[in-house]
Amino acid sequence: MFDGGLDQLRTAMNPRSIAVIGASENPDKVGGRPLQFLKRFGFAGNVYPINPARAEVQGLASARSLADLPEAPEVAIIAVAGQAAFDGVEECATAGVKLAIVMAAGFGEIDPVHGKEMERRMTALAHARGMRIIGPNSQGLANFGTGAILSFSTMFAELPPPEDGPVGIVGQSGAVSASIYGILRHRGIGVRHVHATGNDCDVTTCELASVVAEDPDLKLLLMYLEGLPDPHHLARAATIARARDLPIVVVKGGRTRAGQTAASTHTGSLSSEDRVVDAFLRQHGIWRAGSIAEMIESTELYLKGWRPAGRKLVAITTSGATGVMVADAVDTANLKMADFTPATSEALASVLPPIATAANPLDLTGALLTDNALFVRVLDVVAQDPGVDAFLAGITVAGAGYDVDMLATAAARCAARTGKPVVIAAPQESVADRFRAAGLPSYQFETRAVEAMGRFMAHLELMRTTRLRAPAQPAPQRIAPHAGDARVRNEVDSLALLAEAGVPVVPHRLCRSADEVREAFAALGAPVAIKGCSSEVTHKSELGIVALNIRDGDQAVDTYHSIVDKLQAAGLAFEGVLVARMVNGRREMMLGAHRDPVFGPVIVLGDGGKYVEAMPDVRVLIAPVTPELVRDTLSRLRIAPLFAGVRGEPPMDIDAFVDAVMAVSRIMTASDSRIESIDINPLIVAAAGGGCLAVDAVVVSGSN
Amino acid sequence: MFDGGLDQLRTAMNPRSIAVIGASENPDKVGGRPLQFLKRFGFAGNVYPINPARAEVQGLASARSLADLPEAPEVAIIAVAGQAAFDGVEECATAGVKLAIVMAAGFGEIDPVHGKEMERRMTALAHARGMRIIGPNSQGLANFGTGAILSFSTMFAELPPPEDGPVGIVGQSGAVSASIYGILRHRGIGVRHVHATGNDCDVTTCELASVVAEDPDLKLLLMYLEGLPDPHHLARAATIARARDLPIVVVKGGRTRAGQTAASTHTGSLSSEDRVVDAFLRQHGIWRAGSIAEMIESTELYLKGWRPAGRKLVAITTSGATGVMVADAVDTANLKMADFTPATSEALASVLPPIATAANPLDLTGALLTDNALFVRVLDVVAQDPGVDAFLAGITVAGAGYDVDMLATAAARCAARTGKPVVIAAPQESVADRFRAAGLPSYQFETRAVEAMGRFMAHLELMRTTRLRAPAQPAPQRIAPHAGDARVRNEVDSLALLAEAGVPVVPHRLCRSADEVREAFAALGAPVAIKGCSSEVTHKSELGIVALNIRDGDQAVDTYHSIVDKLQAAGLAFEGVLVARMVNGRREMMLGAHRDPVFGPVIVLGDGGKYVEAMPDVRVLIAPVTPELVRDTLSRLRIAPLFAGVRGEPPMDIDAFVDAVMAVSRIMTASDSRIESIDINPLIVAAAGGGCLAVDAVVVSGSN
Repeated sequence: MFDGGLDQLRTAMNPRSIAVIGASENPDKVGGRPLQFLKRFGFAGNVYPINPARAEVQGLASARSLADLPEAPEVAIIAVAGQAAFDGVEECATAGVKLAIVMAAGFGEIDPVHGKEMERRMTALAHARGMRIIGPNSQGLANFGTGAILSFSTMFAELPPPEDGPVGIVGQSGAVSASIYGILRHRGIGVRHVHATGNDCDVTTCELASVVAEDPDLKLLLMYLEGLPDPHHLARAATIARARDLPIVVVKGGRTRAGQTAASTHTGSLSSEDRVVDAFLRQHGIWRAGSIAEMIESTELYLKGWRPAGRKLVAITTSGATGVMVADAVDTANLKMADFTPATSEALASVLPPIATAANPLDLTGALLTDNALFVRVLDVVAQDPGVDAFLAGITVAGAGYDVDMLATAAARCAARTGKPVVIAAPQESVADRFRAAGLPSYQFETRAVEAMGRFMAHLELMRTTRLRAPAQPAPQRIAPHAGDARVRNEVDSLALLAEAGVPVVPHRLCRSADEVREAFAALGAPVAIKGCSSEVTHKSELGIVALNIRDGDQAVDTYHSIVDKLQAAGLAFEGVLVARMVNGRREMMLGAHRDPVFGPVIVLGDGGKYVEAMPDVRVLIAPVTPELVRDTLSRLRIAPLFAGVRGEPPMDIDAFVDAVMAVSRIMTASDSRIESIDINPLIVAAAGGGCLAVDAVVVSGSN
Repeated sequence: MFDGGLDQLRTAMNPRSIAVIGASENPDKVGGRPLQFLKRFGFAGNVYPINPARAEVQGLASARSLADLPEAPEVAIIAVAGQAAFDGVEECATAGVKLAIVMAAGFGEIDPVHGKEMERRMTALAHARGMRIIGPNSQGLANFGTGAILSFSTMFAELPPPEDGPVGIVGQSGAVSASIYGILRHRGIGVRHVHATGNDCDVTTCELASVVAEDPDLKLLLMYLEGLPDPHHLARAATIARARDLPIVVVKGGRTRAGQTAASTHTGSLSSEDRVVDAFLRQHGIWRAGSIAEMIESTELYLKGWRPAGRKLVAITTSGATGVMVADAVDTANLKMADFTPATSEALASVLPPIATAANPLDLTGALLTDNALFVRVLDVVAQDPGVDAFLAGITVAGAGYDVDMLATAAARCAARTGKPVVIAAPQESVADRFRAAGLPSYQFETRAVEAMGRFMAHLELMRTTRLRAPAQPAPQRIAPHAGDARVRNEVDSLALLAEAGVPVVPHRLCRSADEVREAFAALGAPVAIKGCSSEVTHKSELGIVALNIRDGDQAVDTYHSIVDKLQAAGLAFEGVLVARMVNGRREMMLGAHRDPVFGPVIVLGDGGKYVEAMPDVRVLIAPVTPELVRDTLSRLRIAPLFAGVRGEPPMDIDAFVDAVMAVSRIMTASDSRIESIDINPLIVAAAGGGCLAVDAVVVSGSN
């Protein structure tokens, strides 16, 4: 991959000169739209239509080819199709163009063999001359800050001239980028960047995003991804964003099996495990929205500069039922209803009518109808409560008798004075519009308002913790798995490797004779477990070569013979039996690791035992990890309540488990590591102070 | 409770005569609005303003009191406050009014002592004369089919004259009923009923709903509930609805702890456990929407008469990325992407352009821009596939070049021909509006469209299964718990009771001496468990009076003595020790039952063992249950994958578990049952054919 060319991308954000190869007089054609847009949105640089058949296009002098221009244009749009597009790339590279945008479809996205090959060749041509390519199959780039609208999006033609704004939108899909743009504009939100990269034969969505993240005016970066073959680019974007407190929100298509199937048809994206993508985004402080709807519904909250310190909400409503539904939504969104300080409660009691209660949610009751200033007085009181992080006003029904402008002014003043989020829920559009005019985010449904606030506040928290942990997150390692020459180590070898790396393992001996078994039994002490040891078997219990709780030496020897027989009957190599002390602990957990072809070393941790696949309670992390990240991840497991001890049990030794995770993280990230995967199950965790012990493990290493 | 008066409620839907006590000349006052509305919405009966201070109100002759009227009005609106409202109720009852609507607030909702007492007295007055009361604190009733708008809702004043329609809205809260109404009207959906019952001192929301459900024109009944003190009324509504295939969708506030706290402040609702409410609704075929937003977003789907047989969806999109997001949403919403038949695939291949793939989701690509008829041809093909249950068309961006009306006509024709749901996702309002004009539900976001379809189709499935099981669902029993005189049975007594009722229990003996222990040990066979038996202890393991895996007689006797000592040291009554055979099974499950003060006998079933509270995996059902319902419920447990056997294990004897649940259901619903609660944990379930055994149990019964 060619990573040295970010300057060309920066140039494309504000080029001095632009050529359009295949320029069209018709402003609704692919080759006509960019000319129309460059004029309409006030692009100040030189624009050169290239059309050998015309002397003038859309009022501009047209040239036959790039060679006829007075200068090499910094950026060229290639609006011709097929072989002509390919030739255009060559012409641009030769002329010294820095970046070419290839709009034509019909390459890799429809023909993974010849189409992809064409893309590889055009990329090679470009790179040989230091040129970068956006596309093919790209709808183009648009920067409304500079007027460099290098796009043929229908959406820009449809809307009134858009306002520049603090939002950036970057995606492969032209339709999705444009539709997000259109919805935001209709909601009165200005947008700076709208980029659609298409087939990503050279510049990828994430690489472009890393340049967009440099724009100092941006307050929010939105991305739509299907594949994520280049997480290091996204990591770069995230690093820049983190330094500037710029939030990144991503929708990643292909969350589910059905979605992945569709994505592989659509973009041919090689899909990483979705939970690995999830871990990557989270560890980089990027919020993964569940849908474009969720992305858009939270957008406005990001643009106000709000950075609430906590998650405690006050709801002020005109209907008790709305308050109840807000409280339900708050619980579900993992927010909290604020408790008023005594001073607030007292002050509220003096401004509220007798039929209202000074509780949160605050139901103003029908009293508001005859006394609109009640809302103002209540807000003035609550605004002074230091325990409140955000405000939600629910105006369920307003009409004759309501002075909605007075309410909106009071709410806006509260936001201005406190610097805290003030959000409105108003089912009537006419009411919501008045609050919007006062600069406040307004939702039709109170639950949607709370859900959006919940996501926003959770993202802020993620950004804060990610900044604290940031040094532990390098760009992902691109170590390809050596599947071809992988070697499964037997249990004894696996345990030895882990022990050496610092993972405590169960006391055990490898025995190859009845005498050795008897000796081991005596040395380890009853009860013991005896297991057949073979690198050819990973699921031993199904084969009946595991015996637990053996309490006398004769039984141990009998077991030994029986296992030898079973291995022989199954035609498996006999590498000995493992005699291990039986371990009692508080819980069987699991700890594993493997190498993702894209994201590098991945750690899996969680509840262990036999049903780890049937009833998974595990989480994944991308290595290297920090102890804080591991602890935070453990706290999200279903079994987390057991860690502190329940039903009179002592707490579990989670410190020891975290140490084991750190050891596995070190094994996987060591620069000379040949380990492909690790699967420790169970890793038995004892009561606090008692440590943990790997009782069974399979390690797969590359051959050496 | 006074349950004999549904006729009065039916009368209120279409009365011949209406009096308004406290009639006002001002059409925006509580006493003025109903007069205004009755006129505006064409009420055809007699309307009598009552206002002693005026000869005429809003153009109608006014009377001093009901006594001065030429007839006893069938319905009276009481629009005066405080004591005057109370007096109005008395006057109405005396005059022979059938139903009075008390609009004044300031009763039970603000003063749970005196206010409630006033409500009880007015109810008693009314019932003595056969009159029913809606309210107090009611915004009123509105039937747009008859023009009987007995309401002062601001919302009706704000909107253009509403169209009658197939939706009914019933709730306590005026604000919520009105806001649902307003949003539906703005979406072009006509509404027949909008009722807000207020404090429910006599007629409750659910009782009124049972009358609304009788309206033969209704296609959907929407309800907002906070409390549910009278499930038998809702059961009646559900029975009527089931017989007519009328869907009921409920939002029940107070889902969460925060919401319940808010609800108890708002309406003083005594909150039943939310999961019991959930079970009740589900067992009656009522859909519980998570929010008003969800309720409204699904509404239109119910009104088209669609009854798709399955959950298989086809998505046709203008953008591959939209198809990916639809597929993700389909997976999440528990729908399925349909597989095309070979005939469909073949026919598609012949109509699609070369760059499009005949896969579901179907991406029409940019080809649609130059060939709008492509959409028509594709839809015509797919409409004939018998394996498709519903269609989603995603029009992500349309503009110049798109003939949206042609697309809309084709989509509407597909819906008409197939009778199957056809739903649109179009981010551009201008596009969505054209599809709406063609009669198709249109959503801004594809995920929201799929989520709404998912809920709708799941509800249809619930309605189908509920109809099959309907005879097992009587009105809930209103058996109050006898907490005062409850008696905890010790383990031996508990097991005996269960065994007698048909629940298999572990072989065991109660022993009161060392000799009896030795004898029991010999009779039961090693290994055994020995447990101290005391009705004063429910959590035995914390006390150290449980010993497992005892393998010889001497150890058994020692254990006996040690338990006797521990019980004595703890000052607990000695009722013997229980010696039981150790049971091995496939899984420790749990089975319990108790009496909900409102819903009657409730069964709890799920995963068992020590962590049932710390990591619950249980479901509740309201008894009596059917085996089918129990099986369906079991299949929703987290542990459900284990039932069939995993990792080489045999399947579990789920039949035996279902039998045990049925036995517990019989115990709890027997007319002479004195059992308050049952807690069997573990109920060990063996491999198929091996049955299940109650190993530990606590039964609490009322004294006798």
